[in-house]
Amino acid sequence: MGEFELIRNYFAAAPCAQPGEGVALGIGDDCALLSVPAGEQLAVSTDTLVAGVHFPDACDPFLLGQRALGVSASDLAAMGAKPLAFTLALTLPEVSAAWLEAFARGLNLMAQGCSLRLIGGDTTRGPLSITVTVFGTVPAGMALTRAGARPGDLLCVGGALGDGGGALPLVLNQRSSEASTTQALLARYWSPQPQLALGQALRGNATSALDISDGLLADCGHIALASGVRLLIERDRIPMSDALLGFFGRDEGLNAALSGGDDYVLAFTLPPSRLDSLTSAGLPVSVIGQVVAGQGVVLLDDLGQDVTPLTRGYQHFRETR
Amino acid sequence: MGEFELIRNYFAAAPCAQPGEGVALGIGDDCALLSVPAGEQLAVSTDTLVAGVHFPDACDPFLLGQRALGVSASDLAAMGAKPLAFTLALTLPEVSAAWLEAFARGLNLMAQGCSLRLIGGDTTRGPLSITVTVFGTVPAGMALTRAGARPGDLLCVGGALGDGGGALPLVLNQRSSEASTTQALLARYWSPQPQLALGQALRGNATSALDISDGLLADCGHIALASGVRLLIERDRIPMSDALLGFFGRDEGLNAALSGGDDYVLAFTLPPSRLDSLTSAGLPVSVIGQVVAGQGVVLLDDLGQDVTPLTRGYQHFRETR
Repeated sequence: MGEFELIRNYFAAAPCAQPGEGVALGIGDDCALLSVPAGEQLAVSTDTLVAGVHFPDACDPFLLGQRALGVSASDLAAMGAKPLAFTLALTLPEVSAAWLEAFARGLNLMAQGCSLRLIGGDTTRGPLSITVTVFGTVPAGMALTRAGARPGDLLCVGGALGDGGGALPLVLNQRSSEASTTQALLARYWSPQPQLALGQALRGNATSALDISDGLLADCGHIALASGVRLLIERDRIPMSDALLGFFGRDEGLNAALSGGDDYVLAFTLPPSRLDSLTSAGLPVSVIGQVVAGQGVVLLDDLGQDVTPLTRGYQHFRETR
Repeated sequence: MGEFELIRNYFAAAPCAQPGEGVALGIGDDCALLSVPAGEQLAVSTDTLVAGVHFPDACDPFLLGQRALGVSASDLAAMGAKPLAFTLALTLPEVSAAWLEAFARGLNLMAQGCSLRLIGGDTTRGPLSITVTVFGTVPAGMALTRAGARPGDLLCVGGALGDGGGALPLVLNQRSSEASTTQALLARYWSPQPQLALGQALRGNATSALDISDGLLADCGHIALASGVRLLIERDRIPMSDALLGFFGRDEGLNAALSGGDDYVLAFTLPPSRLDSLTSAGLPVSVIGQVVAGQGVVLLDDLGQDVTPLTRGYQHFRETR
């Protein structure tokens, strides 16, 4: 048995790879088999992380395992899907037992936190990269898409923005600060917390949704385009964490929140009548603006002046696109 | 819009990415949505091909596009699944319009031949690699697995073996021959033909099945292990193509058939009573041996002597495992 076959067996023995509801056949045959309940659709999303492009080559494999699955699970949250399973395609330059053990531990922790079961994949030799495909279920016709926002809807987000993007200089060791602030930002980057409960609660309530991976302005642009509407964002209502404000100050913090990316917080639109039931259920819903007729995304200051930045670019770790 | 976003739009416009049965939502949102008919299960398989490991860096992108999807679709055939959709995670060192156009053309040809729709994926910058995840449907409980072969069953394959593995020295430009033979072998390597119709016809007939990717002996070993049986293979019944025999001669050709891999032909076990209905339906079924009590795989010559090679290794293109 070759070492790569040993790795396959290693993952097959992981706690997250054990049989469970919805998984009729797991790792070990030509295909896995999923059972999708009658009346439900299957939501599918694929993300690739490449060493040196999406994460530093020398990063902690435990954190990498967490992040690789977390960013994909966030796509399920954005559709209002209930997590079911995932596949892992892992390409490794060499086999290191310590690296694998730590990576699998991080992956497993995120998988169990998200109720995702590992059902298969592929392990190959080559430059380090990770492709995760996640599967979730959603009642037919109830998935949250980017199209559906209507004039009159509120624009909302599911929590503080900017921490993920703000953590980038820390991830790259370009800046440092006192430990507690640093740790809070790094945790948001390395251990994204997919808003799965919020996404499922938004079914039948939100008119559109996505997860913020490219920065608020860029991602709101996706909703505006898909829905054929204009989104007005009130700058002073954008929620930011104490860690972000403490580390960067207000202006630079706001820049991270608007354009930083990597937050994996949901952005969504709601008819105003739906707001109270969600907030009274204790769900994290922050109103940051509204939907009007037109197109594009406009940022407004407290006087209602257009203060939209000219560049809305986002920068993932060294990614060029 | 960055060049990688342009690539995503490029694939979204491909013929194989257009809407169709079973695809409730395709490319462009956080997740795609699949509709799985009531009473059916979803078969899922993921394969990664890495440049310099699974294929030469400088290979024809048209052929690579065909092969990348074909080898994954073969896993659906092995389960008896009906093809539905696939995702493509493509990592590219640079954006070349000519490369992409040819790759997409090959991918599209295979996708349309297999009735597979592109529903999503990811395009990233990095060392060239391709991860394809395929989806198919199969009536619940009817999927063909590796476990289920019983003593008394016949061992069969779906066609000539050895061409794919025999093509390797040609792929690597280590050998050449007259054009027609060369072309036949290279075509088997670069354009695997997943036995989808055969796989679906085997539902309810075969007791076990897989596709031969690692060589007949190694893959029969997987059936023997999963089913808890011994497989006897009659050497002189192994089908081989004229191209393989013409290029390699009988001994070396047999070696490619036994251990060469990359054939993507089905191997399966059947109760003898099921054979006639399959062959009379015109399906390619070649009996090459039988299932007995015990374990492991044994190769027998025409006198019934054990001539099992000591090494059953297979070699994919430069892969070490």
